[in-house]
Amino acid sequence: MAPRYAPSLRSRLAPLLLLLQLVFILIYGFYTEVKSNVKVRGDNFFCFYPNLQDVTVMVFLGFGFLYSFPVRYGFSGSGFNFLVAVMATQLAVILNGIESWYYSGKIIIDLKSIVVDEMCAVSALISIGIVMGKTNPVHLILIAMLEVSGFVLNKWLLRTLLRVQLPNSIMQLHIFGTLFGLVLTWMLYRTESERQFEKEKSDCKMGLFSMLGSICLWIFWPSFNSALVKDGALGRKLQAVCSTYLALAVSAVTAAAVSVLSSPRGKLNLIHMQSCILAGGVAVGVSMTAVRQPWEAMAIGFTAAIVSTIGVRYLKIHMLLAFQCHDTCAVLSTHGLPSLLGWVAHLLLQLKDCADHTMAIRFTVFHICTLLLTIALSLSMGIITGLLVKSNFWRPPQDKKCFDDQAYWEFPHLAVRK
Amino acid sequence: MAPRYAPSLRSRLAPLLLLLQLVFILIYGFYTEVKSNVKVRGDNFFCFYPNLQDVTVMVFLGFGFLYSFPVRYGFSGSGFNFLVAVMATQLAVILNGIESWYYSGKIIIDLKSIVVDEMCAVSALISIGIVMGKTNPVHLILIAMLEVSGFVLNKWLLRTLLRVQLPNSIMQLHIFGTLFGLVLTWMLYRTESERQFEKEKSDCKMGLFSMLGSICLWIFWPSFNSALVKDGALGRKLQAVCSTYLALAVSAVTAAAVSVLSSPRGKLNLIHMQSCILAGGVAVGVSMTAVRQPWEAMAIGFTAAIVSTIGVRYLKIHMLLAFQCHDTCAVLSTHGLPSLLGWVAHLLLQLKDCADHTMAIRFTVFHICTLLLTIALSLSMGIITGLLVKSNFWRPPQDKKCFDDQAYWEFPHLAVRK
Amino acid sequence: MAPRYAPSLRSRLAPLLLLLQLVFILIYGFYTEVKSNVKVRGDNFFCFYPNLQDVTVMVFLGFGFLYSFPVRYGFSGSGFNFLVAVMATQLAVILNGIESWYYSGKIIIDLKSIVVDEMCAVSALISIGIVMGKTNPVHLILIAMLEVSGFVLNKWLLRTLLRVQLPNSIMQLHIFGTLFGLVLTWMLYRTESERQFEKEKSDCKMGLFSMLGSICLWIFWPSFNSALVKDGALGRKLQAVCSTYLALAVSAVTAAAVSVLSSPRGKLNLIHMQSCILAGGVAVGVSMTAVRQPWEAMAIGFTAAIVSTIGVRYLKIHMLLAFQCHDTCAVLSTHGLPSLLGWVAHLLLQLKDCADHTMAIRFTVFHICTLLLTIALSLSMGIITGLLVKSNFWRPPQDKKCFDDQAYWEFPHLAVRK
Repeated sequence: MAPRYAPSLRSRLAPLLLLLQLVFILIYGFYTEVKSNVKVRGDNFFCFYPNLQDVTVMVFLGFGFLYSFPVRYGFSGSGFNFLVAVMATQLAVILNGIESWYYSGKIIIDLKSIVVDEMCAVSALISIGIVMGKTNPVHLILIAMLEVSGFVLNKWLLRTLLRVQLPNSIMQLHIFGTLFGLVLTWMLYRTESERQFEKEKSDCKMGLFSMLGSICLWIFWPSFNSALVKDGALGRKLQAVCSTYLALAVSAVTAAAVSVLSSPRGKLNLIHMQSCILAGGVAVGVSMTAVRQPWEAMAIGFTAAIVSTIGVRYLKIHMLLAFQCHDTCAVLSTHGLPSLLGWVAHLLLQLKDCADHTMAIRFTVFHICTLLLTIALSLSMGIITGLLVKSNFWRPPQDKKCFDDQAYWEFPHLAVRK
Repeated sequence: MAPRYAPSLRSRLAPLLLLLQLVFILIYGFYTEVKSNVKVRGDNFFCFYPNLQDVTVMVFLGFGFLYSFPVRYGFSGSGFNFLVAVMATQLAVILNGIESWYYSGKIIIDLKSIVVDEMCAVSALISIGIVMGKTNPVHLILIAMLEVSGFVLNKWLLRTLLRVQLPNSIMQLHIFGTLFGLVLTWMLYRTESERQFEKEKSDCKMGLFSMLGSICLWIFWPSFNSALVKDGALGRKLQAVCSTYLALAVSAVTAAAVSVLSSPRGKLNLIHMQSCILAGGVAVGVSMTAVRQPWEAMAIGFTAAIVSTIGVRYLKIHMLLAFQCHDTCAVLSTHGLPSLLGWVAHLLLQLKDCADHTMAIRFTVFHICTLLLTIALSLSMGIITGLLVKSNFWRPPQDKKCFDDQAYWEFPHLAVRK
Repeated sequence: MAPRYAPSLRSRLAPLLLLLQLVFILIYGFYTEVKSNVKVRGDNFFCFYPNLQDVTVMVFLGFGFLYSFPVRYGFSGSGFNFLVAVMATQLAVILNGIESWYYSGKIIIDLKSIVVDEMCAVSALISIGIVMGKTNPVHLILIAMLEVSGFVLNKWLLRTLLRVQLPNSIMQLHIFGTLFGLVLTWMLYRTESERQFEKEKSDCKMGLFSMLGSICLWIFWPSFNSALVKDGALGRKLQAVCSTYLALAVSAVTAAAVSVLSSPRGKLNLIHMQSCILAGGVAVGVSMTAVRQPWEAMAIGFTAAIVSTIGVRYLKIHMLLAFQCHDTCAVLSTHGLPSLLGWVAHLLLQLKDCADHTMAIRFTVFHICTLLLTIALSLSMGIITGLLVKSNFWRPPQDKKCFDDQAYWEFPHLAVRK
């Protein structure tokens, strides 16, 4: 095979996938069980199943097409995202079930647990978005496996050490995924990044595919944010949906305005219209349990969109030049900053409600601890993963084959056989 | 800036968006509230939320991709549709809530009210479809704001003056939107339109994106028509869904047949397959409350598709040449004529059920009044909007930049910065 | 008209469509009724409607875009699929209702019956996938009409002769559709097939549209498999959803691994990632009523994906060369083999549960009979259809116009009129 081709992944990708899959099947065979004792009030299934479907659409369709914007990276963007999501969800089922396995000997699978698992996969997909294009699928799967492990560990620590509730702890997925990915991309830095990769641009049609993914995410984000809000308190679920809806609406308008304002020729930028319209959903998701009034959600959406749009416009390039962090999908500005903003908003809204001074200080300390724990764990997991993934054993793509489907996909005109 | 570029919208679009958005946030801050006292029988949320999602998919995904058929107008088609829909929905929340604000001091937001608001936004999107491509985003937003105001006023007048029920009054959205848009396009007439704009054609890939939008609309149209049918009368909701489903199915087949029949070479036309397959849904939507039997829905769908397909094939070009109305998305034939047909069908079906002669005449007069009121209001609102929008202050695009993304969007290959 | 053009379908397609549609409307007018006596416990509608929507998305969006992969066949792929699905569903409503008409004089339409009808349409769509591109729309509609008739007959025979339950009998749709289509393509064999049709390849953008369809199918497959599982036994419905979900996940990973392993250069193949990821869903669907444990579903998914991927890679070309069966969408490997595998798995799982030896033999004989009946009926219906469709009366496309939209669609740049 001539050296101008990308190195073959046959001896790496296939064994890795088959091995992991067989291990998963074995573990599932011995330890899992589909929940059989369904509650008496039978419509539980019908209430939750559409919610699961919405999240599934976001994970497989939304992120997949959002990530397929580079002009020659459409197959990889959607295909690898799909593969990573499927692997990460399967792993998350096991890891999230360890506790229940420890107590009852069985990992129980039901619709709600699948939603939680898919959310862990979303955390991995966020990290993937940062290193997309500069890595091969073997890297992506290893990264996803370690990210999910780290995130589940973080969730568990937050729950057991600090007694953070599930909806709050899982919403840290944006912060965890972003920091994990940033450390990783910093460790995998390649000089090529500084003058843009030649194929890292979009074109007219790929932009529309990416827009499709983005709109799917936008539409179903209220389901994502409200999925884990307890069913009993129905008013809370409605609140979560409406808050997210309003925040998303406001951030769409604001992102467009800031995009035009910050453009020298007064033009819109499609990347802003794809990524930054979601900023409101991210920020409200993190602060959701404290948001009571529509205007609070809207104000959070407004600020998040401004921060996010300015971040995509100016911060992305500075992160590259100053810190050698090449962030393919501008995840720092799309998920990272809005989720930090949401964290701050959560703190402020809680403090506003605190009658007592001591209480307020206590809550602040507690809230800062959750953030610090998440940051510490994500950074250390990122460094470990980086060290593992850096090895040439995994056959990283050459610089000129970055963002190129041809390195990994048989192309249709080559696939004709007689 | 060289004059060959489209005029910059920086000083128009950004302030308009930010101003409107901040005003919205202020109004929401003082006067809105998410419904907190949810009914005892708790599954209300789970019943209605999927319905809301379906309508949201239609508004943001369906219309967005349907409108992105011109070969170089994909970003604008989907992006501006998105922006307009978000703004129009936010405005509709306020306007629809005025009555409740007047009586109780608060605008109550719940899932059903959001559906009603999105339907008002659909009315604006229908108008937008007529002037798409020949206007800039500032125009589109102003048009949407005024259209929504007019439509909500019309709905209120129908309800208070003529006691038309909500499902009936809101289904006038097709008639209102079409006439409003037609008056507008007539006032904004430009000589270029007569020999087609050079970029107002589709190509193979854009046609598929447009097909995607159209199929999304087709699939979820039953949810749209049945959304406001009262929950109590469950049989009615099922009836509405089945009627719409059958009418859509029949109109898809009929549109294809008429398209082939009216083509000199016996070929199908993709535009017909995209627009006219929806005609049945429009017509049945307007006449829904009177449709009882499956065959009635099917006959309505059959006639609507014939009218619509012939309209797109022959009427569109005559509207342009004879009346100087350039109708980008053939909205007159897709929404206007089928909804008039639905209005007639509603009248006939009601008369058929009337035992009494006086009753029948009364109903006829009443039914004609609702139509005349809608027409009068839509025409006058259209004229007012046209006068406002015609000004050069809003920097209309040059003729040769019509239907061109480059006038409004930073293009990916230009966006590379170092 | 110059002979280099494809023959006009004006005098064939339009009358056929109009005639069938009018006959349908007449039959519906006399014999159908929307179910009016809805059960007391009213949320039936809300439980089932999202399920219907999921299946509708699969039928119209999923299959439509999956079939639009050939580079110049996008309009036809999605458009003809749409047309065929609409016609087949309408016919299935009538045929499935004959029994109820015989007893009560009316065909009752409700949400569940529409799902059953759409599943019959899926059976036709599977057959269509085999002959796509080499036939014209008139062929496709005739084929669909006969396929649906045969499939409904088969379902009825299985139910009345062998007392096979509805969920089991309808899941034979994969086997019936595949064999019917294979016989047909063998009878319609054309020499051109042996050296590939020039336009039967995909390209980068069309591959993504096809990926979109495939992901839609993948996401909603659990709804498809669980739709007919009885509502009463809620645990069974949850089981069906989880089994399908796991099988799909495993088959996605396995398909990717086998695709890389079987490629000389260690690359993935997009066709495998589109078709073979669904194999698990097909296989589990057929064996669903016997699958109890998660690992059983996963093992079935694993095997199905291996069989399917190897089939697409090696079997497709041998079927063509050895048996003169040109299988456009590799339906044999995607639906045929996995469903046979599912049939075997069903048998084995049932035998495992049988305590009694006689019982086991009885069940085996019964199970083999259902398969043989399905095979016999599908082959004979396929031969009858082939004889009918082979006639030149239906104006088959020339070899060089195969897989070409231009034979059937007015092209946008030709559609400009002044």
